[in-house]
Amino acid sequence: MQGVLDFLKGIFVGNNNELTILGKIVKIAIIFILVRIGIRIFNAIIDKSIDRKRKIKFGVDERKANTLATVLKNLNKYVFYFIGLVPSLELFGIKTTSILATAGIGGLAIGFGAQSLVKDVITGFSILFDDQFSVGDYVKIGEFEGIVEEMGLRITKIRDFSGELHIIPNSKIEAVTNGARGPMRAMVDIGVSYEEDIDRVLAVLNDMCEEIRKVEDCILEGPTVLGISSFGEYEVVVRIVAKTEPMEQWRIERLIRMNIKETFDRENIEIPYPKRVVFDEKLKGGN
Amino acid sequence: MQGVLDFLKGIFVGNNNELTILGKIVKIAIIFILVRIGIRIFNAIIDKSIDRKRKIKFGVDERKANTLATVLKNLNKYVFYFIGLVPSLELFGIKTTSILATAGIGGLAIGFGAQSLVKDVITGFSILFDDQFSVGDYVKIGEFEGIVEEMGLRITKIRDFSGELHIIPNSKIEAVTNGARGPMRAMVDIGVSYEEDIDRVLAVLNDMCEEIRKVEDCILEGPTVLGISSFGEYEVVVRIVAKTEPMEQWRIERLIRMNIKETFDRENIEIPYPKRVVFDEKLKGGN
Amino acid sequence: MQGVLDFLKGIFVGNNNELTILGKIVKIAIIFILVRIGIRIFNAIIDKSIDRKRKIKFGVDERKANTLATVLKNLNKYVFYFIGLVPSLELFGIKTTSILATAGIGGLAIGFGAQSLVKDVITGFSILFDDQFSVGDYVKIGEFEGIVEEMGLRITKIRDFSGELHIIPNSKIEAVTNGARGPMRAMVDIGVSYEEDIDRVLAVLNDMCEEIRKVEDCILEGPTVLGISSFGEYEVVVRIVAKTEPMEQWRIERLIRMNIKETFDRENIEIPYPKRVVFDEKLKGGN
Amino acid sequence: MQGVLDFLKGIFVGNNNELTILGKIVKIAIIFILVRIGIRIFNAIIDKSIDRKRKIKFGVDERKANTLATVLKNLNKYVFYFIGLVPSLELFGIKTTSILATAGIGGLAIGFGAQSLVKDVITGFSILFDDQFSVGDYVKIGEFEGIVEEMGLRITKIRDFSGELHIIPNSKIEAVTNGARGPMRAMVDIGVSYEEDIDRVLAVLNDMCEEIRKVEDCILEGPTVLGISSFGEYEVVVRIVAKTEPMEQWRIERLIRMNIKETFDRENIEIPYPKRVVFDEKLKGGN
Amino acid sequence: MQGVLDFLKGIFVGNNNELTILGKIVKIAIIFILVRIGIRIFNAIIDKSIDRKRKIKFGVDERKANTLATVLKNLNKYVFYFIGLVPSLELFGIKTTSILATAGIGGLAIGFGAQSLVKDVITGFSILFDDQFSVGDYVKIGEFEGIVEEMGLRITKIRDFSGELHIIPNSKIEAVTNGARGPMRAMVDIGVSYEEDIDRVLAVLNDMCEEIRKVEDCILEGPTVLGISSFGEYEVVVRIVAKTEPMEQWRIERLIRMNIKETFDRENIEIPYPKRVVFDEKLKGGN
Amino acid sequence: MQGVLDFLKGIFVGNNNELTILGKIVKIAIIFILVRIGIRIFNAIIDKSIDRKRKIKFGVDERKANTLATVLKNLNKYVFYFIGLVPSLELFGIKTTSILATAGIGGLAIGFGAQSLVKDVITGFSILFDDQFSVGDYVKIGEFEGIVEEMGLRITKIRDFSGELHIIPNSKIEAVTNGARGPMRAMVDIGVSYEEDIDRVLAVLNDMCEEIRKVEDCILEGPTVLGISSFGEYEVVVRIVAKTEPMEQWRIERLIRMNIKETFDRENIEIPYPKRVVFDEKLKGGN
Amino acid sequence: MQGVLDFLKGIFVGNNNELTILGKIVKIAIIFILVRIGIRIFNAIIDKSIDRKRKIKFGVDERKANTLATVLKNLNKYVFYFIGLVPSLELFGIKTTSILATAGIGGLAIGFGAQSLVKDVITGFSILFDDQFSVGDYVKIGEFEGIVEEMGLRITKIRDFSGELHIIPNSKIEAVTNGARGPMRAMVDIGVSYEEDIDRVLAVLNDMCEEIRKVEDCILEGPTVLGISSFGEYEVVVRIVAKTEPMEQWRIERLIRMNIKETFDRENIEIPYPKRVVFDEKLKGGN
Repeated sequence: MQGVLDFLKGIFVGNNNELTILGKIVKIAIIFILVRIGIRIFNAIIDKSIDRKRKIKFGVDERKANTLATVLKNLNKYVFYFIGLVPSLELFGIKTTSILATAGIGGLAIGFGAQSLVKDVITGFSILFDDQFSVGDYVKIGEFEGIVEEMGLRITKIRDFSGELHIIPNSKIEAVTNGARGPMRAMVDIGVSYEEDIDRVLAVLNDMCEEIRKVEDCILEGPTVLGISSFGEYEVVVRIVAKTEPMEQWRIERLIRMNIKETFDRENIEIPYPKRVVFDEKLKGGN
Repeated sequence: MQGVLDFLKGIFVGNNNELTILGKIVKIAIIFILVRIGIRIFNAIIDKSIDRKRKIKFGVDERKANTLATVLKNLNKYVFYFIGLVPSLELFGIKTTSILATAGIGGLAIGFGAQSLVKDVITGFSILFDDQFSVGDYVKIGEFEGIVEEMGLRITKIRDFSGELHIIPNSKIEAVTNGARGPMRAMVDIGVSYEEDIDRVLAVLNDMCEEIRKVEDCILEGPTVLGISSFGEYEVVVRIVAKTEPMEQWRIERLIRMNIKETFDRENIEIPYPKRVVFDEKLKGGN
Repeated sequence: MQGVLDFLKGIFVGNNNELTILGKIVKIAIIFILVRIGIRIFNAIIDKSIDRKRKIKFGVDERKANTLATVLKNLNKYVFYFIGLVPSLELFGIKTTSILATAGIGGLAIGFGAQSLVKDVITGFSILFDDQFSVGDYVKIGEFEGIVEEMGLRITKIRDFSGELHIIPNSKIEAVTNGARGPMRAMVDIGVSYEEDIDRVLAVLNDMCEEIRKVEDCILEGPTVLGISSFGEYEVVVRIVAKTEPMEQWRIERLIRMNIKETFDRENIEIPYPKRVVFDEKLKGGN
Repeated sequence: MQGVLDFLKGIFVGNNNELTILGKIVKIAIIFILVRIGIRIFNAIIDKSIDRKRKIKFGVDERKANTLATVLKNLNKYVFYFIGLVPSLELFGIKTTSILATAGIGGLAIGFGAQSLVKDVITGFSILFDDQFSVGDYVKIGEFEGIVEEMGLRITKIRDFSGELHIIPNSKIEAVTNGARGPMRAMVDIGVSYEEDIDRVLAVLNDMCEEIRKVEDCILEGPTVLGISSFGEYEVVVRIVAKTEPMEQWRIERLIRMNIKETFDRENIEIPYPKRVVFDEKLKGGN
Repeated sequence: MQGVLDFLKGIFVGNNNELTILGKIVKIAIIFILVRIGIRIFNAIIDKSIDRKRKIKFGVDERKANTLATVLKNLNKYVFYFIGLVPSLELFGIKTTSILATAGIGGLAIGFGAQSLVKDVITGFSILFDDQFSVGDYVKIGEFEGIVEEMGLRITKIRDFSGELHIIPNSKIEAVTNGARGPMRAMVDIGVSYEEDIDRVLAVLNDMCEEIRKVEDCILEGPTVLGISSFGEYEVVVRIVAKTEPMEQWRIERLIRMNIKETFDRENIEIPYPKRVVFDEKLKGGN
Repeated sequence: MQGVLDFLKGIFVGNNNELTILGKIVKIAIIFILVRIGIRIFNAIIDKSIDRKRKIKFGVDERKANTLATVLKNLNKYVFYFIGLVPSLELFGIKTTSILATAGIGGLAIGFGAQSLVKDVITGFSILFDDQFSVGDYVKIGEFEGIVEEMGLRITKIRDFSGELHIIPNSKIEAVTNGARGPMRAMVDIGVSYEEDIDRVLAVLNDMCEEIRKVEDCILEGPTVLGISSFGEYEVVVRIVAKTEPMEQWRIERLIRMNIKETFDRENIEIPYPKRVVFDEKLKGGN
Repeated sequence: MQGVLDFLKGIFVGNNNELTILGKIVKIAIIFILVRIGIRIFNAIIDKSIDRKRKIKFGVDERKANTLATVLKNLNKYVFYFIGLVPSLELFGIKTTSILATAGIGGLAIGFGAQSLVKDVITGFSILFDDQFSVGDYVKIGEFEGIVEEMGLRITKIRDFSGELHIIPNSKIEAVTNGARGPMRAMVDIGVSYEEDIDRVLAVLNDMCEEIRKVEDCILEGPTVLGISSFGEYEVVVRIVAKTEPMEQWRIERLIRMNIKETFDRENIEIPYPKRVVFDEKLKGGN
């Protein structure tokens, strides 16, 4: 067997242990066959990945999936041919250092540019994996807030109450504030005149809170009168809080305000206007 | 056949397995033929890419396309000649390490400088691919807002309502707020005097909203009277919201305001001036 | 023995000290056996690490642990096969520099993207190791504050009093302010009229503080009347402080405010409205 | 022919295939002749580039062009001599790794420092290529605004209305707001008393707008009375807008204001002073 | 002796100057013995360092020291085995470039992540070495202030007056403001009516300051009446300053304020309320 | 000749083509002679550069120039000796890779630290080359403004009007605002009562402007009455602008203000006090 | 002589031109002797540098100098032994690539951490070299201001007027504002009633300024009455400036204010209270 191998070797490998021209051609052929096989395998992987993505909860629609597949396959093809080209040239004694250096600098430039794309995708997976928010949640991300409308590989779309659509690249998402994970707090501050009997005011508000609790289902706890939260310039500020179902807190706050207005009107409790003491004087000589 | 090959080899390759001067000249010739072929191929690719770009929705006009093509072809030419120069010099025993190092540092410097150009283009494609906005959309990007007038490979142009044209490099676009993707909200806050009967005010406003709904087609939902949104210093603030077609929200807000003014005038409901309680006193001794 | 070794060597290693084809195949086989063993060992390590994590205080639930294990094992598999592939190709004279360069650039891009994940985990361990906060503590982290609800490897979850859940990647946690490590201070500033006898006011407040101290158990020190903290526009500001058990400071502040209101009402001490001296004049000619 | 070549080779190349001292000297001579040729070629390129620059729209004056040429030629000279020095030293067996390493660190330091110069030039070309602004345009760049007075390779000069000259390195130019690319909007907000008949006011303003339109040529559209833009504390705010030729918007706004003042004086429509309702009261006992 | 050495060499080193398999095994054994010795030495160093740290002023308690030792020894072990593994594999002709490259990228990723840990420790030593602050000092660091409670290798803990504990990683400490290094200044600004005789006011305040100086021991200099620090809207502002022992400045300021109130009451000097001149007029026709 | 060369070569070069010890010593001697020559040449260059710098407009005084020369020559010396040391050690078979690696890391650390020094100098030259400002100009740089007092290689000194000296490293200079490059604008806004006849006011101001123009030489254009620049709360704001010689704008503004005051006093035109309409009412029952 | 050398060489260098074991041991001995000599030399340099530093104006006290010397000598020792260890291991055929790689990554991590230390020292020297400030100067650095108390290699200490000590790492010092380099400006703005005769007021103030100039030595120029600096809401603002010796400006400002108060009292010139015109009206029907 060794003899056969030596015979075969003799055809392709000359003395000096270098390949003959025939050997070189065969080697290049093998390289390019390997390249084509590599392209096929990776294309199959790309197809499979995109197919799988079509089925799960990322809303990648048909059109986008096809575009993505085409782009990735093209990229795949170029990368493999480049990998095959370099050793082929070297076989004929052309040093490819300069090609590689040029390609390296170009690649680096593109790499830096594409860096935020990679970061988008990685952060996107983190958000999904940690279940930081889902479509339909009310969230605050940096300066934006609204209902999550779409969670993508690269971007997250949030619909503001104003109707505007905020489109945020995932890499720009740092801390997320989620307003749909457990009961929310409704909070109303109401100013009462310093002249009022504060004990009576608290009693009246306590009664009112109990009434609200009876009629409103989506209140989970309270409303409770906490007491004096601060002394204002012309008013004693009383705070009322309640726990509600998510997204209901604003409606409950308006409801409590409506009830306060009606209760205070009925009970003759003053919501004071700004008050000021004025000393009238005549100007003295100098001034 | 081996004999013919050996004969040919003998002409170009001397003993010590080194190329003869003739062999070197032939090799350089081959390198430069390869270089020219490489230039032609890449020029063709450039032409084709720019031709294709002319046809799609990037508004690349004729003049720009030609400039771009010229610049890219020049760059192409320089890169290829540089790639060919280095191995040629090395053939004559001149070590090109120092040339390469010098070029590398220069290339790095330019690479860092050009980095934001690369990022512009990559972000530009992301915006198109994700369909973040189209020409004619009303968007907010960072501190700028207006109607998108042009989406380019490198820059996006936004026309402000003030008439100013904001020119934003794509790499500076982080989060986009798009105001043309679904119904917008019109919102009017109106202050009512504490002395008014709040139930009557709400009823009057509800009637008014129903009237508006009948006459205005571009309102998609509402207008609805939400209730008391806050207690102001001297006014109960009532909020009215409506959903409108995009870009119509400002006109609808003005319309609702006009209606409120007329309705309140008719119904004798006060939009209160700032109110203040003043206690007049004479200065006591000490002060 | 040397003879046997030479015999074996003769089969696998040809002259020129290079491996025969048989030797190469055997070598590749050994490489891949090593690769498989490596994969097994690392998979076992992964299983063990995740098992251990399941038992300690990180709340990694079953579903997440399984996902993590799957992801890590896949990654493990790819890394090892890549490590095995490169020397195999080189055995057949295919220089793998170009493959390695391509992989390197790709790896670098992903490395930069994943960098913040690594930082998340490292900071996560720092927080645990230094015991910066525990679940249930009231903390402030940057612009967020609330009760810590979950401390994870990658993220920390904080429940705001408003009910919102702040989800903060650990790498974004710089300085932490912990409000559950020792007694908290309750502080109330109360404005008194310039016309009041300040010594009497301080005496009355001192008596009041002693009363509060008697009835309230969760006050650890004080309340103490510090004295005049500033001269306001129309009031002398007196400050009262107390040390309380953590999270009780807000209730104690409300309690002190309630007591002040009642004491001042009883003792006829004025909480002044804004005061102003007005000189009425007739306009002279010129103005 | 081979014999002649061998004879020549024998003079310059000794046994061991190394150059003889004579050969080395000849080689160094050749290197430095190549270096001088390289310097000449690049100097010619520099002269040509600067000549061309003199003719186009960059305002590079004579003095600057000469300075630039001198600087570039010097730099050119140093780079080429350095490239020639390294292989010469190596010919005599002095390893130049340490020189190269030292030069590399120095070069890197300068490279980082010069990076913003490179970025200046690249951004400068981008601005020209995208035609972001021209000399004479009214632009806003970051915190600066004014008329563009000079666009250079490295810096842009903007003349503020205050007379100050802003000198901005091009690398610091991110987004540009150009106020000379299409019609500008003139906008005047005018407050009207709540007591006025709003329909009459709008009618009067509409008439006024039509008058202005007739007499003023540089108004392209409008002026139009939009309606009630907001409810102020003591005034109904009415908005008037018009489209004008660039840079005329401020004059048109002053013109509209002048007309409003005269029209309102004539029509007896009030531009209201701040209004306030005051309740006079006597202080009660407690306060 | 040379003979014996040659004999030994013959066993381990075959012809071609390569090691025999026996030689290789012996070499690996030696490598791993060296590795184990290296591990032992470094473990001893770790133990010694931690022991020393236990004794000095860093408050590293027993539990933490043990954890740290365990972590460092594990790390030590892995690093050494990795160092031993690579040359062993290479002995058998397996090129370890790919392993090294993979490890390098991983190491780099972790290195970047751990960078801030290293910076924490280095800054920690700087703070100690420069004696920037000690436990018990009142300091301001960035946005945080309070009493230093713990200085660690990695973090500094500051107790705010509000009771909150600020935990700051040392790498986030830039400039430190230390309020316990020398006398502090107490400063009180007091407004006096424009109608008062300013010379008399200053004389009265000077007398008062001399009284305070006599009774208060922790005042190191002053209090001094500086003069008129500004003209307010309705008051001449007079400034009083004193130098006190650290942390006493706030008490002294309250003391000075108390004295001013009592002195002014006694001397009938007015602390003025905001003053305003009002011209009453009737509205003319047009407005 | 070849024979003589061979004879010489025989002394210094042994068989195996390696240098004899004598050859090595001679080679080291040559290296260090080259090093000393290199040091001399560079010292001469340093002297010459500094001499030239002494003569041009950088205000480098004698003392600094000497210090700089000493520092640079020392640095020069160390760099050359290091360059000479490495190949000398290698001659004796000591691999210097580890020395180089250590030096490289140290160099890198210093390089990063010194980076801003390099940037200072490069920006310094840019400022000079672009003639961005000269000594005596009134400039604004970032948050600082004042008269340029010194332009150095590394820092720029600006004297504020307050007398303070701002010392700014050149690398921190981004955009420069120069107030001494062309005429400056003086601008005065003056409020006029709504009750005034606006046409008469403008006429009076126009007359006044003409008077000023006659007496003041450093006014280059205007003063011009632009018209109504805005409607204030209680005043019509009229704007007057003029173009003046640089640095005279503030004096001209004061002059115009003085003239306005005198003209309005003479012409009985009111500069209005804040005006307010007050509705006096009695409190109704409920509030 | 050659014979003796060959004899010696025969002992240390075996055939194959490799060192014998004896030769290796001798070589290691030489390496470590060189290492020890290197350590000694560098220790001497360290001692000398620190000695020199003790004598110049950096206030490095004895204790710190000793600590620093110890730390540097230890570092020195470790670096040299590491440099000696690597070639020793390589002598015995152990490839040290993996050790070097591990050390490199570690070194890089520490290098990045220590970077700011290096920057501290470099900036420290810059400050000294440019004489940006000296101990005793009143400076503003970023957000801090005060008297410079200590200038160190790494940190600068500034004593605030409040007594607090700001400790700033030199690397955080960007622009410095020095208030002790030339005369300072004292500036007082004084409001005068619109009803006053402005010419008389200016005359009176001019007389007052002349009086001050006579009695006060540390005024270098002025005080000068500049004229009307702005029209306030209810006052004509007149500005007075003077040039004083450094640090005296605040005292001079207080002196000028004191003089203005006394002069105006004497001359019956009004410092006006805020003025307002009020139109009293009855509410009409609609509002």
